[in-house]
Amino acid sequence: MQNFELMILGCSSATPTSTRNPTAQLLNIAERFFLIDCGEGTQMQLRKFHVKFQKINHILISHLHGDHYLGLMGLISSMHLLGRTNDLHVYCPAELQEILEVQFKHSQTRLNYTIVYHHHTYENNVLLFEDEKVEVRGIALNHRIPCCGFIFREKPLPGNISKEMIVKYKLTVEEIVYLKQGSDLSLADGTVVPNKDLITNKTFPRSYAFCSDTIYDEGIIPYIKDVDLLYHEATFMNAMLPRAIQTHHTTALQAGIIAQKANAKKLIIGHYSARYKDIEPLVDEARQTFENTFPAIEGEVTTVSPVLI
Amino acid sequence: MQNFELMILGCSSATPTSTRNPTAQLLNIAERFFLIDCGEGTQMQLRKFHVKFQKINHILISHLHGDHYLGLMGLISSMHLLGRTNDLHVYCPAELQEILEVQFKHSQTRLNYTIVYHHHTYENNVLLFEDEKVEVRGIALNHRIPCCGFIFREKPLPGNISKEMIVKYKLTVEEIVYLKQGSDLSLADGTVVPNKDLITNKTFPRSYAFCSDTIYDEGIIPYIKDVDLLYHEATFMNAMLPRAIQTHHTTALQAGIIAQKANAKKLIIGHYSARYKDIEPLVDEARQTFENTFPAIEGEVTTVSPVLI
Repeated sequence: MQNFELMILGCSSATPTSTRNPTAQLLNIAERFFLIDCGEGTQMQLRKFHVKFQKINHILISHLHGDHYLGLMGLISSMHLLGRTNDLHVYCPAELQEILEVQFKHSQTRLNYTIVYHHHTYENNVLLFEDEKVEVRGIALNHRIPCCGFIFREKPLPGNISKEMIVKYKLTVEEIVYLKQGSDLSLADGTVVPNKDLITNKTFPRSYAFCSDTIYDEGIIPYIKDVDLLYHEATFMNAMLPRAIQTHHTTALQAGIIAQKANAKKLIIGHYSARYKDIEPLVDEARQTFENTFPAIEGEVTTVSPVLI
Repeated sequence: MQNFELMILGCSSATPTSTRNPTAQLLNIAERFFLIDCGEGTQMQLRKFHVKFQKINHILISHLHGDHYLGLMGLISSMHLLGRTNDLHVYCPAELQEILEVQFKHSQTRLNYTIVYHHHTYENNVLLFEDEKVEVRGIALNHRIPCCGFIFREKPLPGNISKEMIVKYKLTVEEIVYLKQGSDLSLADGTVVPNKDLITNKTFPRSYAFCSDTIYDEGIIPYIKDVDLLYHEATFMNAMLPRAIQTHHTTALQAGIIAQKANAKKLIIGHYSARYKDIEPLVDEARQTFENTFPAIEGEVTTVSPVLI
């Protein structure tokens, strides 16, 4: 079964602490490595957790607050210095291109590889990336400045033709390959065996949604409905709701409500305010509204397991 | 006696490693805190080593390679978020102001304090900062892009009037304060007691020179002559001299030669290439040409002790 796993690289909000780095996550779907946000120090975090960062071909930046992009210039430079030649796709606010290019100019840097920019439109459901294994779409988040969330969906996997059926119908390799695409089997006597009777261990396509930074906004629910794994920011405890509203952030209690209303399978919260030395109360609070909540912890990997249909 | 101490915050060259951060140093002279370069992750290093970063009022950036300035935007933002109102003086290439301002614009940041920019002229000996305790001057370094080193000099300290002299001449408090400024003492009988006979524990003003990044260049020697503490980059072992020349860096052996020719009292080397897991051979090599060499190690503090005249 192909991989579907999320590694947290940074979980703090705007001001990092001595133990928490600003936002960055690495998502691996079928060996496509997506770096989601790239706060200051991300390249050091990647090294610390033994991630070979040249295998990252897609970097998605949600918005232009520093704690979500300030590590990008350093990572891009290190990729260059370490010999990268493959294209790097950066999905970002259009203005980030200007921010990077002014720095390339003044440091007299000519990269040995190409950055392919994909500027955000901030529309819900807009297709950002697609190949035969994965698609990535945007989520319009509601923050102080334009901000884009992301939903990653695995393409449906074919499953396998059951051994029993292979024996029963004496299927050739060519027939098996053909039937795995989803076709029914037509027998010599005209009988049709539906594809679903031939296939075993077919699984539901898995999905991951990244929602940070945002105020509590039920408008995102249709776009993350039934997601397997939801990361939602939870900058504050609900006791600080006025501050959350003022700064366009979410409380832990509210993050749980979003997960519950979206029928998510699992919630990871993060983007903790530096004022919370201990994050356990944030988790406890989110669990009041959504039981299956876990904290973002740097270096930890969450695997989304396949579920048989 | 007032403080004169240097803390290393980062000692790697362009690509940081999992254990070494890019260049940053904190110099404390008489409670003036100078941050010298600000590579990515400097704000986290300051926190790690328990430095209250609001007391930094002067940041000096040598040049616009990312490993020397990419942490500045994050530090400036955190200073803002944590309530800074005092002016922050930034001594830097003129282009850095553009790099910062484009980011303030796109992140819609309005700082609660003022950044006072002082653009480098890259001239030797140009005065960058002066108050009653310290002066800082520029050193023209020879790198691939314009680069400025820094020399920090303590102003001469008055020393104390010896107890013996106070008793002998029945000096009043007013006279003591006056004589500490450097005046001779005129007695009622017309005799003049020279200031040097009155003063005890007068010390030589201390100095620190920061020379990174640069190719081996004896042209800097007149400007760092007799310095108490010299930091000189030593990116490579001398076996890689052609690479050092090509990239406008210095070898450990060459750093020792500069220290020796400048009659420095002590040398700290740093800016190690990521290829050297173990830095001891770099130190050993520099010691071949300058015995009193030490490695830059993050978190370590070097105190420059006063020497009696």
